[in-house]
Amino acid sequence: METRLTLKENAVLISPRHPFVVIGERINPTRRKKLAARVAAGDFSMVQEDARLQVEAGAQVLDVNAGVPGADEPALLRGAAQAVMEVVDVPLCLDSANPKALAAALEVYPGKALTGSTTAEARMMDMVFPLAKQFGAVVIGVITDDRGVPPTAQERLRAAENLIKRGADYGVPLEDILIDALALTVSADHNAGRITLDSLRLIQQELGVNLILGASNVSFGLPDRKTINVAYLALAIANGLSAAITDPTLPEIQTSLLACDLLMGRDEYSAHWIKAFRAPKKAKAEAEAVK
Amino acid sequence: METRLTLKENAVLISPRHPFVVIGERINPTRRKKLAARVAAGDFSMVQEDARLQVEAGAQVLDVNAGVPGADEPALLRGAAQAVMEVVDVPLCLDSANPKALAAALEVYPGKALTGSTTAEARMMDMVFPLAKQFGAVVIGVITDDRGVPPTAQERLRAAENLIKRGADYGVPLEDILIDALALTVSADHNAGRITLDSLRLIQQELGVNLILGASNVSFGLPDRKTINVAYLALAIANGLSAAITDPTLPEIQTSLLACDLLMGRDEYSAHWIKAFRAPKKAKAEAEAVK
Repeated sequence: METRLTLKENAVLISPRHPFVVIGERINPTRRKKLAARVAAGDFSMVQEDARLQVEAGAQVLDVNAGVPGADEPALLRGAAQAVMEVVDVPLCLDSANPKALAAALEVYPGKALTGSTTAEARMMDMVFPLAKQFGAVVIGVITDDRGVPPTAQERLRAAENLIKRGADYGVPLEDILIDALALTVSADHNAGRITLDSLRLIQQELGVNLILGASNVSFGLPDRKTINVAYLALAIANGLSAAITDPTLPEIQTSLLACDLLMGRDEYSAHWIKAFRAPKKAKAEAEAVK
Repeated sequence: METRLTLKENAVLISPRHPFVVIGERINPTRRKKLAARVAAGDFSMVQEDARLQVEAGAQVLDVNAGVPGADEPALLRGAAQAVMEVVDVPLCLDSANPKALAAALEVYPGKALTGSTTAEARMMDMVFPLAKQFGAVVIGVITDDRGVPPTAQERLRAAENLIKRGADYGVPLEDILIDALALTVSADHNAGRITLDSLRLIQQELGVNLILGASNVSFGLPDRKTINVAYLALAIANGLSAAITDPTLPEIQTSLLACDLLMGRDEYSAHWIKAFRAPKKAKAEAEAVK
């Protein structure tokens, strides 16, 4: 079963049989003061630059978050999405906890968007799933519920079941839901990484739903976060992960994800792998020839 | 269930619950002309240097191979093992396809050695398992049989079953066998990586045996082999791998394996991870202080 995102005629397919999908995380004002100030002022030039950079680096989908405290998020999310679609043609993940902002952006989105996100809390699901149904969007379902993040893989499976059931009640099919089993930081609990890995496998085996993860959180507070994040994505891929919201401009992450595709049998004749190493060589040769 | 290797009072435990075990691969004359010439002449100084370097780099076990074409392998393997035990105190993997060489080295080994290897061919099993029983050694069982490497995970499971069954016939218990499900090169078959990953999981789930892999072969013939090998070890660990024969002197591999321990819940309080980053800083600070 595959999850399909589109922007006009462009489609991205997400499933364990397809090459891994990277969703570029950089268009997000949280913790980026300069970007936040620009977005709040309705200036999307930096957003567009981030969009170009991430797609050039290999992002197949871009996350667009325009949450600046105190600003008019519906107008900003819609404006940011439109600005991004002027410069790149990959599907978008419209990222907001505010259903009004999601609706404002979905209204102008020409295709099947990803929307992030709803938790397994009734209050959230009852706002987000009707929107997804109305606009034919795919929903990220995060396994937190009224009590927070369930501590065990079995309980996370139950939260995922609740998400899928409520989605179905609203007419959102299984293939239009991506479950985020949440990677908490291992510096706070040394079992946090393993519990999420177990959850991924259990949820996919039991429910057949496709899986997404924001993979950067797991390394919070530790040295050499990049190495941890690269290793975590590989471990998660082996447990069924098909897409991640991460920074595609870090070459170590992109290269490791290509290696995982190669090793998981998703890169016929090693074509993508070999091409990735030819491209820089070719660019270098051309640069030399110009001299 | 854990597999226990010892050298005198030093023990190394191998199981999915324990930190990953790196078996240093460098003491092997194959493809190392200079080392081969020295070993053939009975000069083990280079072997000793490789032993020290690998243990300093974090190897918990050392592979010792003394196979030089035309030379007296039993004498050389015994001599090399003795030379290594003069300078380091980690358990050894006595690595030969020649049972006479294995016997010669096992005779002088003070503890529970790892011996590599037997295939699932009757001819090999009937030579190696009696030796393992006699000397109380652990055996690496490789899933090749009379027809070569079985093409599917199910057939590799059957080969592993045959190895375990024949081991039992000779009195070698399950915990004294490590199964090597063989990583073939993905450049020859783009499904080779995935089939081995599936085999690891299947063999461990069905048989409960501990798993070992020589992980460098998978990347043969491709650019940036190191990145592929690092990713492959992470994918394999997520599928149940507990030990690998690899090069511990490559820092990328050692660091990624530490990250995997951290993320698999085998590094309480992130202690090993944090220590690994403190050690170089401390060494640097000491070097600065001397100036």
